[in-house]
Amino acid sequence: MILTIQCNDQVGLVAAISKYLSGRGINITSMREHVDTEAGRFFARLQVEGGPATDERGEFKKGLTEGLASVLPQGTQIEVIIGIPKRVVVLVTREHHCLSDLLIRHHFQTAGMQIQCVIGNHPDLGDLCTRFGVPFFQVSHENKTKAEFEGELLAIIDRHPSDLLILAKFMRILSPEFVRKFPMKIVNIHHSFLPAFIGSNPYRQAHERGVKLIGATAHFVTDSLDEGPILTQQIIPVDHTFGVQEMIRSGKEIEVAVLAEALRLVCEDRAFVQGNKTVIFK
Amino acid sequence: MILTIQCNDQVGLVAAISKYLSGRGINITSMREHVDTEAGRFFARLQVEGGPATDERGEFKKGLTEGLASVLPQGTQIEVIIGIPKRVVVLVTREHHCLSDLLIRHHFQTAGMQIQCVIGNHPDLGDLCTRFGVPFFQVSHENKTKAEFEGELLAIIDRHPSDLLILAKFMRILSPEFVRKFPMKIVNIHHSFLPAFIGSNPYRQAHERGVKLIGATAHFVTDSLDEGPILTQQIIPVDHTFGVQEMIRSGKEIEVAVLAEALRLVCEDRAFVQGNKTVIFK
Amino acid sequence: MILTIQCNDQVGLVAAISKYLSGRGINITSMREHVDTEAGRFFARLQVEGGPATDERGEFKKGLTEGLASVLPQGTQIEVIIGIPKRVVVLVTREHHCLSDLLIRHHFQTAGMQIQCVIGNHPDLGDLCTRFGVPFFQVSHENKTKAEFEGELLAIIDRHPSDLLILAKFMRILSPEFVRKFPMKIVNIHHSFLPAFIGSNPYRQAHERGVKLIGATAHFVTDSLDEGPILTQQIIPVDHTFGVQEMIRSGKEIEVAVLAEALRLVCEDRAFVQGNKTVIFK
Amino acid sequence: MILTIQCNDQVGLVAAISKYLSGRGINITSMREHVDTEAGRFFARLQVEGGPATDERGEFKKGLTEGLASVLPQGTQIEVIIGIPKRVVVLVTREHHCLSDLLIRHHFQTAGMQIQCVIGNHPDLGDLCTRFGVPFFQVSHENKTKAEFEGELLAIIDRHPSDLLILAKFMRILSPEFVRKFPMKIVNIHHSFLPAFIGSNPYRQAHERGVKLIGATAHFVTDSLDEGPILTQQIIPVDHTFGVQEMIRSGKEIEVAVLAEALRLVCEDRAFVQGNKTVIFK
Repeated sequence: MILTIQCNDQVGLVAAISKYLSGRGINITSMREHVDTEAGRFFARLQVEGGPATDERGEFKKGLTEGLASVLPQGTQIEVIIGIPKRVVVLVTREHHCLSDLLIRHHFQTAGMQIQCVIGNHPDLGDLCTRFGVPFFQVSHENKTKAEFEGELLAIIDRHPSDLLILAKFMRILSPEFVRKFPMKIVNIHHSFLPAFIGSNPYRQAHERGVKLIGATAHFVTDSLDEGPILTQQIIPVDHTFGVQEMIRSGKEIEVAVLAEALRLVCEDRAFVQGNKTVIFK
Repeated sequence: MILTIQCNDQVGLVAAISKYLSGRGINITSMREHVDTEAGRFFARLQVEGGPATDERGEFKKGLTEGLASVLPQGTQIEVIIGIPKRVVVLVTREHHCLSDLLIRHHFQTAGMQIQCVIGNHPDLGDLCTRFGVPFFQVSHENKTKAEFEGELLAIIDRHPSDLLILAKFMRILSPEFVRKFPMKIVNIHHSFLPAFIGSNPYRQAHERGVKLIGATAHFVTDSLDEGPILTQQIIPVDHTFGVQEMIRSGKEIEVAVLAEALRLVCEDRAFVQGNKTVIFK
Repeated sequence: MILTIQCNDQVGLVAAISKYLSGRGINITSMREHVDTEAGRFFARLQVEGGPATDERGEFKKGLTEGLASVLPQGTQIEVIIGIPKRVVVLVTREHHCLSDLLIRHHFQTAGMQIQCVIGNHPDLGDLCTRFGVPFFQVSHENKTKAEFEGELLAIIDRHPSDLLILAKFMRILSPEFVRKFPMKIVNIHHSFLPAFIGSNPYRQAHERGVKLIGATAHFVTDSLDEGPILTQQIIPVDHTFGVQEMIRSGKEIEVAVLAEALRLVCEDRAFVQGNKTVIFK
Repeated sequence: MILTIQCNDQVGLVAAISKYLSGRGINITSMREHVDTEAGRFFARLQVEGGPATDERGEFKKGLTEGLASVLPQGTQIEVIIGIPKRVVVLVTREHHCLSDLLIRHHFQTAGMQIQCVIGNHPDLGDLCTRFGVPFFQVSHENKTKAEFEGELLAIIDRHPSDLLILAKFMRILSPEFVRKFPMKIVNIHHSFLPAFIGSNPYRQAHERGVKLIGATAHFVTDSLDEGPILTQQIIPVDHTFGVQEMIRSGKEIEVAVLAEALRLVCEDRAFVQGNKTVIFK
């Protein structure tokens, strides 16, 4: 069982957690803890053995929260979460590489996530989804206002209960109104080593600048474009023989790897958000 | 203040630690904990604020050990260590690259370690040590039995109290008798990605095998050659244009980096030994 | 057009090549050349513009070979190859991750290769192949001699003309007789950083040794197990929190990446074999 | 002998080079060639055996240039360079890590370069230079106009004939007038993964953005700050436990490595400039 805890920092929090757990004969097999001293914020992820049965988890959580509350000033918000498998909705456009990887992991159940459906603003990737028996919906953005387009997306998303939206090379910019409905619940793969080359055509920008490494960044989406908390980043070397097309091809390899790693972190409850940054217990 | 703890695992250890600390108003700013479930062994490293003054550390350690003992079966060994800066003796032969790096870090006090002296079985690196005001002793191995040679080394080591011996490209094999005097207190840099290419001339072996990556490994020295617990490893790409000499040259770059990283881990009390492996809290 | 050339080294080879090409108005846009001075062997890969039409390639090759022959001792073997898309047969057992990646790249035609069919000694991966319309044949190895088993494999391979066999986690050892039928035409993905952990259960071996990096190696198959020329290798960091299962899971990610990269090198005619090593023009 | 050639591209250049060399019995042991097809520009680096004696190099160069001219439009500029060891002047401020590494490589003659002198705008690093017998000059920038300050720098540089200026953590911005005196002869190490975090305090910027990788970039200096052709870049992973100080400390490790690698590329004549990019034959 995975347990994550987040609250303001205070002397005695770890003692309260471990006392509560040991009192119930629950053994901590791995514990990661971080205090953001600037923000005065406490984060912990515990892997435990001997946790409560499913129907006793509500009570367990309540008890642990009370244990923490006893050492914190009255009224402090405490977030205790017991890890569950994640249900996801994937948004795509035309490029297949990230979606292919997600479908394979979903199909063989190696990702710790369940794809509820895929929505594309182009029809191209429908065939691929069908091959894996995953529902695909096309929602064209053409001849629609952004509000209309996003309304149609939301209608489908609402019918497919999910814990996470994944933008797997979804090439439309979502409105702040849309994004705010899913706070820290949208993961995007950006095809550059942010904050370099924000915006469109990062590989062209990278080619023109003559960089020797290109990168990819997976991040939570906030209402500032490409500015949300970063989950993970990777780079790959390039050289003078790479034109824009070769950079795009090479970049796709790490886009796939970076998105897969980011989703592993989120789906295994290893990622916390603090301000505009993440705390990641790898 | 850095605190490391090692003992057999038991439910309630983290509770005991954190209760003891919070009872003294000591705040845990970072805590890393690992249970080796196979071995039933508990490891923790804590960074704390508000720790005891230097002259109260003995009592503090005693109290914490008692706190832990109260949840463990009677007679269980408990190791509580408060981190201190490390004094080191460095053994070298002729190659300068690792020693140069250590001397620079020592000179500018960026390594968290104090070089007490350098011993070389050749005179070559004496000049370099002199430039940094570090005592250098030459102990030739020629025309001596291993016992005689090591006896002379030990005489010098004994006169320079140290917490760690560093083999910075020391090209003599130390006897099991010598090694046993310094259990998990000798760090070696091996010029290959162990366990590939154990023994001599690893770069020649690597060249003949046509590998595409070469590596370096820093490890604690035990009485089995190149078999001690690994601290850290790095690799660097090579290709068909690399002859043995180019591999050696490239390899030196990572030997320096790997030894420096390993010493950082040891000097910051981030490395624990369990059986023939290490637990590293980076 | 891609052109590769291999022969004994001699002063004047590059002059002969470039004179022949420039005489036909063919422009070299990229040229990679390597001389193995120990073996006295010359390797070149050229990307050219303005190459001959398909039906004139035979004559072109003949002319170029004659140009080279004019500067070489009589009777010297010269290998001139014009790159063609590669047809492949894939051999698998039960693990899906490498095959999944190959099928996706085949399906979207991003790999420069055409999968003719997949053969599995277990039925497990047949469903996946069917989803992509790729023929799958099950050839069980049970209750058969190796010769019988390989005879059945060969019967299927013979019916599917191919330039390359790919062992994509095929867990049977092929006989020297089988391997010799496909000299430097079989690519294997080995789940370790060769030459460390040769043989079975490399992740278990890696776990027991306590390494800090695990790797994967793609190599041509020769009749010495795990000893053929290495195409490419990658590593991924691990630590004390990784059990054997976590190492296997992490390892799969690089097995996929390493095999894909090796096949790109082979399919784009970037890999030459010299003795037991490769010359790779990335 | 290393030979580099740069001129406008034309069919027949490689033929002309190799004909000229083979006509003199000079063997090409390694050749790297690149055509920038957009710019119509040809670059080559050759390693040859049997090259001319030192006093015949002028004539050799003239002959080769004429050979190339014969296939190029009249009046085309052709740059033929025979590699020589590089003499360098190093500019520093207060941070020692890059200078330390350069001094060690200079002292042991492993860098292919000769440090003529070091100039610091602070006195701090004089002691280190003295330890290695390298002249150190302090030129304070205080209470001077930039023109006065740079005038004093130039006076010292002029007295120490050099092929390269190295800014090894020199924290003053040089004027366009100064930079133009040394076109593609100044190498700078920038403490970020350019183009991310241009300007001052890149580690603070990186910390605030919450990136998961930090980098360093070595580049030729042009009159646009941090915008010159990039020679090489590396990154190092960071996480939420890194404050600005830890990022700075980690960053220094790769600053050293990146500058050393960039200087190897330049000193071994592996780096060409085309527009605002480099062509690097590693």
